[in-house]
Amino acid sequence: MSFNTPINRFGTHSVKWDSMEAIYGVPADDGIAMWVADMDFAPPACVQRALEGMLAHGVYGYYGDDAGYLDAIRWWMQTRHGWTVERDQIFTTHGLVNGTAMCIDAFTKPGDGVVLFTPIYHAFARVIKAADRQVVECKLANVNGRYEMDFDAWDAQMTGNETMLILCSPHNPGGRVWSVEELQGVADFCKRHNLLLVSDEIHHDLVMPGQKHTVMATLPDISERLVMMTATTKTFNIAGAHSGNVIIADPKLRATFAQRINAMGVSPNSFGLFMAAAAYSPEGAAWVDELCSYLQGNAQIFNEGIAQIPGLKSMPLEATYLAWVDFAATGMPAAEFIDRVQKGARIATNYGTPFGAGGESYLRFNLATPRAVVVEAVKRLQMAFADLQ
Amino acid sequence: MSFNTPINRFGTHSVKWDSMEAIYGVPADDGIAMWVADMDFAPPACVQRALEGMLAHGVYGYYGDDAGYLDAIRWWMQTRHGWTVERDQIFTTHGLVNGTAMCIDAFTKPGDGVVLFTPIYHAFARVIKAADRQVVECKLANVNGRYEMDFDAWDAQMTGNETMLILCSPHNPGGRVWSVEELQGVADFCKRHNLLLVSDEIHHDLVMPGQKHTVMATLPDISERLVMMTATTKTFNIAGAHSGNVIIADPKLRATFAQRINAMGVSPNSFGLFMAAAAYSPEGAAWVDELCSYLQGNAQIFNEGIAQIPGLKSMPLEATYLAWVDFAATGMPAAEFIDRVQKGARIATNYGTPFGAGGESYLRFNLATPRAVVVEAVKRLQMAFADLQ
Ligand SMILES: Cc1ncc(COP(=O)(O)O)c(C=O)c1O
Ligand SMILES: Cc1ncc(COP(=O)(O)O)c(C=O)c1O
Repeated sequence: MSFNTPINRFGTHSVKWDSMEAIYGVPADDGIAMWVADMDFAPPACVQRALEGMLAHGVYGYYGDDAGYLDAIRWWMQTRHGWTVERDQIFTTHGLVNGTAMCIDAFTKPGDGVVLFTPIYHAFARVIKAADRQVVECKLANVNGRYEMDFDAWDAQMTGNETMLILCSPHNPGGRVWSVEELQGVADFCKRHNLLLVSDEIHHDLVMPGQKHTVMATLPDISERLVMMTATTKTFNIAGAHSGNVIIADPKLRATFAQRINAMGVSPNSFGLFMAAAAYSPEGAAWVDELCSYLQGNAQIFNEGIAQIPGLKSMPLEATYLAWVDFAATGMPAAEFIDRVQKGARIATNYGTPFGAGGESYLRFNLATPRAVVVEAVKRLQMAFADLQ
Repeated sequence: MSFNTPINRFGTHSVKWDSMEAIYGVPADDGIAMWVADMDFAPPACVQRALEGMLAHGVYGYYGDDAGYLDAIRWWMQTRHGWTVERDQIFTTHGLVNGTAMCIDAFTKPGDGVVLFTPIYHAFARVIKAADRQVVECKLANVNGRYEMDFDAWDAQMTGNETMLILCSPHNPGGRVWSVEELQGVADFCKRHNLLLVSDEIHHDLVMPGQKHTVMATLPDISERLVMMTATTKTFNIAGAHSGNVIIADPKLRATFAQRINAMGVSPNSFGLFMAAAAYSPEGAAWVDELCSYLQGNAQIFNEGIAQIPGLKSMPLEATYLAWVDFAATGMPAAEFIDRVQKGARIATNYGTPFGAGGESYLRFNLATPRAVVVEAVKRLQMAFADLQ
């Protein structure tokens, strides 16, 4: 299978590989980059052909007529997710960090509380703080090594200053595919506390075989307070295109957002549009199915290997390629287990603390790499913690 | 010369060609697209090779290590413009409409007046209004068919509510390369009225042989109120990449802008970065020199042809490829001369009114197309107004 083929990303401006040594001290000649959330795989041939077509034409002017692009999104959401989207509900932003920032800017005021279920993707808190809003951390409950929601505790935490909740669905990190009941709980929570709900579903295609993701927009009675975010960039590994979609069904919310899109001069680059239109296709879908099987295989090998190290615990991955490993039971301070991973195993990972409350004893490992690399990483981790045996 | 080679842009998502019929009613089979400001030329081979290299590698993940990109900008500005830029002064935005919007957002408040010397690039007013700021139109003086500044009149217009001036240098439309004296006048005007000066120099490489552009940042005593904007997208015809640079020397202004960049989640796409780094090179420079000569040839043919039509007057182009043609002396209402251009000559142009006060009797013609197309356009215009002979 082509996912097994190693691709050397050094010297290609890959932040994951080329900046690993400078940031983590993990040596380039022998290190393994398992941090930044992109994959070491080439995207499907349909995406490559789209770029080849651009190159063959050779003129890269202003892009017009996005009907085909919008319809590719509609087709994908209907076919893969049972979600009906209309053309005029789609706004294309410069990726979903930008999309999140635009939502915060459009729908909240400075000082407002923005709720996050932590640990969660670190950029949310960064953007909320940079916009002078308050991060409100609602800690996920760890129930038998799996994150669950804790609405009773969170209800008690709300002060009335909160105006938005950013949900990560599926969840990064921790890899939960939220159940319909949990999602209904989130919707009810937002209604009880009058929160706008931003559902970041950038990982919703990267769902393990056997799991079933539910798009928040398919729940009843939520659309008047719902903003959806989706992208091709994680699914097809084209994060460099920095392109994402903010999809809003409610006309009032849409008008507010449109006004900010115009005021901020947001207008997508043509590379992202061409690649996304090609990716959201039957050929792209078949590739994603293969990818998810492959990622599941990687996760299984990784988690089995980690389970053999006393004190380490990796969350079961229902979605995403991001393994979330708890080092708490080693009794080691973070500095020590980080040192063993970086210096001993020569692996660059994301630290848990930037993911917010509850992440302190964790590291996040990116498994979207050829299987042999995962196997090698497991071997190194077992050696780096061999004294615990 | 390769600029003569026609490239068929129909069916390539070119807004200029593919949307011409829908927007202007100019027929696709026989019409000439002379509106949107991109060129019908392929970029230089160095840019194409950069894309080929991306495609050959085939993985498009998150971009890291922008030192080479930043140094390419520094080299270009030093070598081509005598302007010294430091790495940490450069912010990369999603094109310069986004750059303009970010400046308005970062440095002004709702209700503030933003000064424009009109007629001027239409997107400025659109973004200012969308951000709930006031457009303050200062009309350029038309002195013998050439735009000049009119500081006495403009001083009288200022109310104290104005906080920003957006300068277009060289000027779109009208094609003026502002003299050092004029630029000093602008700097003094900004000081007198306490305006932040945003100098949009997106056209500063597209300067006709014989003309000399001065970068605003090279003037004395202006840096504490100056924000520069530059890009490779006009120069090298890669507007689809939607990438531009906001360059700020003043540390205080820079800190304010950086904070907004973070809050808005602005982060450039890798295609724009790879292409820009390749473009700002000796090979790119040689191509630009050839391009400017070619454009000057086109402008000469166009203006000589227009001069033979009684009542039509095209401004002498010192820079840009955008001819600005005044129809006032025909005595026709706009609807009539537009009709003759669109239906008679089958040419799609930009209307003058969106460029602001003073633009009402004008149309803007994009001359960045193979010479034969310019010749044909002139012939058609002469026929469409033949009754005036
Ligand atoms: C939940 C989530 N949202 C957004 C992003 C980033 O989106 P983009 O690259 O489009 O800014 C990531 C990347 O890891 C993510 O995990
Ligand atoms: C003066 C000026 N600024 C900005 C732009 C557009 O910049 P971008 O495509 O980077 O948004 C143009 C395009 O014509 C322009 O003429």
